Amino acid sequence: MTPTTSAGHLFGPDNLPYGVFSPPGGSPRIGVRLGDDVLDVAALLGDASLATSTLNPFMAQGPERWAEVRAGVMEAVRDEIDPAVSHSLADVRLHLPFDVADYVVFYASEHHATNLGRLFRPDSAPLLPNWKHLPVGYHGRAGTVVVSGTDIARPSGQRKPPADATPTFGPSRRLDIEVELGFVVGVGTPADDPIAPDEFDKHVFGVVVVNDWSARDIQAWEYVPLGPNLGKSFATSISAWVVPFAALQAARIPTTLQQPQVLPHLRASQDWGLDIGFTVEWNGVAVSSPNYRDMYWSPAQMLAHMTSNGASARTGDLFASGTISGPEPDQRGSFIELSWNGAQPVTLNGENRTFLEDGDNVTITATALGASGRRIGLGDVTGTVRPARRPTHE
Amino acid sequence: MTPTTSAGHLFGPDNLPYGVFSPPGGSPRIGVRLGDDVLDVAALLGDASLATSTLNPFMAQGPERWAEVRAGVMEAVRDEIDPAVSHSLADVRLHLPFDVADYVVFYASEHHATNLGRLFRPDSAPLLPNWKHLPVGYHGRAGTVVVSGTDIARPSGQRKPPADATPTFGPSRRLDIEVELGFVVGVGTPADDPIAPDEFDKHVFGVVVVNDWSARDIQAWEYVPLGPNLGKSFATSISAWVVPFAALQAARIPTTLQQPQVLPHLRASQDWGLDIGFTVEWNGVAVSSPNYRDMYWSPAQMLAHMTSNGASARTGDLFASGTISGPEPDQRGSFIELSWNGAQPVTLNGENRTFLEDGDNVTITATALGASGRRIGLGDVTGTVRPARRPTHE
Repeated sequence: MTPTTSAGHLFGPDNLPYGVFSPPGGSPRIGVRLGDDVLDVAALLGDASLATSTLNPFMAQGPERWAEVRAGVMEAVRDEIDPAVSHSLADVRLHLPFDVADYVVFYASEHHATNLGRLFRPDSAPLLPNWKHLPVGYHGRAGTVVVSGTDIARPSGQRKPPADATPTFGPSRRLDIEVELGFVVGVGTPADDPIAPDEFDKHVFGVVVVNDWSARDIQAWEYVPLGPNLGKSFATSISAWVVPFAALQAARIPTTLQQPQVLPHLRASQDWGLDIGFTVEWNGVAVSSPNYRDMYWSPAQMLAHMTSNGASARTGDLFASGTISGPEPDQRGSFIELSWNGAQPVTLNGENRTFLEDGDNVTITATALGASGRRIGLGDVTGTVRPARRPTHE
Repeated sequence: MTPTTSAGHLFGPDNLPYGVFSPPGGSPRIGVRLGDDVLDVAALLGDASLATSTLNPFMAQGPERWAEVRAGVMEAVRDEIDPAVSHSLADVRLHLPFDVADYVVFYASEHHATNLGRLFRPDSAPLLPNWKHLPVGYHGRAGTVVVSGTDIARPSGQRKPPADATPTFGPSRRLDIEVELGFVVGVGTPADDPIAPDEFDKHVFGVVVVNDWSARDIQAWEYVPLGPNLGKSFATSISAWVVPFAALQAARIPTTLQQPQVLPHLRASQDWGLDIGFTVEWNGVAVSSPNYRDMYWSPAQMLAHMTSNGASARTGDLFASGTISGPEPDQRGSFIELSWNGAQPVTLNGENRTFLEDGDNVTITATALGASGRRIGLGDVTGTVRPARRPTHE
């Protein structure tokens, strides 16, 4: 492969995201995506310390090392690449790129939170009193984060529609997606040493695209008073590629104006917002195009909040934005919003659809402005719904 | 040390809990507690596969291996023990005994849930509609689980008392404890393969005592609609010793009668309740004595529920019961209950006290009936509150 192959490609030399792949007959190792190829980084740079099966040890080494390796890869891909270190994407298996430590999900889109407030609490103010004072969030299940391409078994659980007196157990009837951006912590912090918002890029290695699959019927019955659990814990899909934050510098923008002003521990002097455009394809049909620029809370505020109580953070911590929804109907990042809780079906290949049916595929793609003025791609997140397998006990 | 030293001791030959310790100048390794000594298990049994720095690899090997190793230790401690494999507890450092994968906290005490319902929603039914149909729970922060003896820095966060118009940021004024029992998963389950209640002991290796420190003021402001986060995420203390479930067979009892009857996926034919008595000492004064026998939901139901949606489980998953409170005022497992939200102070060494002050120590101890008819001890959980260290931004 020559450098010109990848120029203008969403995964060109301005991007260079990291992942973990197995070549045919080989074991998992760190790769960098260039065009439609994957480069074995340890072999490319002749650096045995990068010959690991997850990104965690590299991510833990911190921003100077991240810059050094990225500079090394950029330098190496300017020249002809030794075919021995390059593999066609079509030939390799992609793995979860890092071991997820803790997984936290925020709720940082005012449009999304407002939409859900209107749907679920039509008689009161859509945003709860705390929403503009802190980035509301909760811990999800780290052990069920899976790499893009993994089939998703329809979850079962207790559901109690309002008209029923008691719950029944069975497959979810309201299986949904959530389009999110995930931030991957490289360097953590010990207990009682909070991370200030402007220290964000000393700690966060890069970003992944997230589909936080959600069973709305299970969630609606279970979630008071301790929050979502089984309605979300069955699976979260992330892209196989972690785009380093260094590749997203041209995408940085000011955060939406925050009114009332946030408390001092959540204030930043730098721009930590991001202009990243997402597209949701449902069975191949583009149904929504939210953009991260419309988010109320910045990821720097999320990380600051998350550690503001003295909680430690670890290499591999993943925190996701929550559903990314914009102000327009075609910028909604979940089907419960797109179909307005089922009342306004989405037309899909001639059919009226609301929530996910067995066999449905959802693919989320995303792009941002790269350093050279061309757009760069984030890794896709794709998943297909498998029918519920187990007896339902119904 | 001779066997007679430990007979009648809470950590006698019927108990033999596992932990991880460092001898003076040595590296972490698996130990078994016998009396006031710690035995190096790999050395005791001459089994190099047990020479690991966490219990996870051993726990992953499953119930037959657990039984084999326990039988080996029981056999070995009948004889004179080689002083080279035995260390005085006073000389060693105890570590977190296992790497925590996911951490889930339930809310399984009807007395606790009813008390909190009365305190927070005095005008409505104390239990929410879902409470008797499923064990309500949420995911906590695995990365801030610490071993007994670790000091707890007072967390800071946003608090908004009802009379204030806006929140302020600063040290929690309502720092509390929660007495809980934690269950440690040895053998997990893949996605879409739920664990039935009666399969509990094929998966759960043992139990720890848990203090789930809670900042009630931070929690009260943040928790709608996604549940507790920073009010809990700063620290959770667990005992250094994991008592194998095999040691607790004489403590098994039927679960409290569940009415209405639970759905089929939560029904068990065996007794998965536990008679385990706890004592809470606040600055050395015993203030409460809850017992696990009063819990509504069994741990077998918690595990079944947690995987009923198809979520996988992993070696090292920790799920805790939620606060253990009994029917009597002196059986309440949190200070918010003991002091009835501050309205009924607890007398402590002549002082009226409600929530935790800097320098306070809390120690939770627990015992259960062992196989020989004598009581066995669970590991203590102790922690002392350090003052908030960081500037408060107030």
